[in-house]
Amino acid sequence: MSTVDESSNIVWHECSIGKSDRQKLLQQKGCVVWITGLSGSGKSTVACALSRRLHSRGKLTYILDGDNVRHGLNNDLSFGPEDRTENIRRIGEVAKLFADAGVICIASLISPYKRDRDACRALLPKGDFIEVFMDVPLWLCEARDPKGLYKLARAGKIKGFTGIDDPYEQPQNCEIVLQHKEGIETSPCEMAQTVVSYLEDHGYLQA
Amino acid sequence: MSTVDESSNIVWHECSIGKSDRQKLLQQKGCVVWITGLSGSGKSTVACALSRRLHSRGKLTYILDGDNVRHGLNNDLSFGPEDRTENIRRIGEVAKLFADAGVICIASLISPYKRDRDACRALLPKGDFIEVFMDVPLWLCEARDPKGLYKLARAGKIKGFTGIDDPYEQPQNCEIVLQHKEGIETSPCEMAQTVVSYLEDHGYLQA
Repeated sequence: MSTVDESSNIVWHECSIGKSDRQKLLQQKGCVVWITGLSGSGKSTVACALSRRLHSRGKLTYILDGDNVRHGLNNDLSFGPEDRTENIRRIGEVAKLFADAGVICIASLISPYKRDRDACRALLPKGDFIEVFMDVPLWLCEARDPKGLYKLARAGKIKGFTGIDDPYEQPQNCEIVLQHKEGIETSPCEMAQTVVSYLEDHGYLQA
Repeated sequence: MSTVDESSNIVWHECSIGKSDRQKLLQQKGCVVWITGLSGSGKSTVACALSRRLHSRGKLTYILDGDNVRHGLNNDLSFGPEDRTENIRRIGEVAKLFADAGVICIASLISPYKRDRDACRALLPKGDFIEVFMDVPLWLCEARDPKGLYKLARAGKIKGFTGIDDPYEQPQNCEIVLQHKEGIETSPCEMAQTVVSYLEDHGYLQA
């Protein structure tokens, strides 16, 4: 094989280590767990509990948090409608790369519009996009208000805030609903276990 | 601990699985191997050989290829000067996330300007950005011309092509130089081994 051939695109595709090799190494299947819900619905808490639970079973996870990514990759984006869509698109594309790397990628962001979530779903192979809806009523999210954002939105100091003056489109056919039931306290660990069981049942915790 | 506390940012940062946990799981340290050089200098070939060699030692790698990323995350970017810089910035930010995930991330892209490469280096903790310069003379890259791009550039059908009508700024203080020496054929595997030895000597192949 000549040097010319070796540096061509064709050879590169032939010789590279692929997704299935990485999955065998990690003894898991790469996928995206996409946690959507209102601010204060507990997305980050469940993401964290999920990563701990999977890590304790020797599985590699990585959390893409909407807020955190805005400090780096998406630090050029505003909170206007177009840039919110672009924010979600980029996180979807990065999540896809992580899944391709064999990682169980946990994306945690409000992602209020169905079309944006569906666009991310379309990037992944069938089955590998697992949408988790934090079904928590607005009044409870607002009562929690962990970052004080609802207070600011009610005071008119934040415009276009999801749940206040911008809609949240509930998922209709998502893979998992984590519901806050009136009078029954479900812990973040129990919620995480629901997701772990789903991943196990669908073969993602083995190569 | 109340539900309010549990869904706050503070608790999230406390309880999450961190980089060092992932590194222990993978028995390696996350870092970025940034391969820079002219089109046709063999970046992709070395990236591939490196990923194979590390995989055979049970290490998890992921290749971010400049061309491939343009099909996904960076599909909104042109080849104009500003967008080329943005292309590199985004790849740098994604590489940073992979390194944080514990992965040995191999970025393979021309990245002709020192300021763009240095901006990516600045994103990573000290030592974790390993710049590899493919030191291959232009005449040889042009003789290889694996994608036929030099021919198009010489014919004026591609404008601003690195090495033809746009400069390539050679790294001055990079970690590794993979040099094409006149009359001595160095195989991609030997070049990859040079990088593996560097990673080993600097502790990246253990947790």
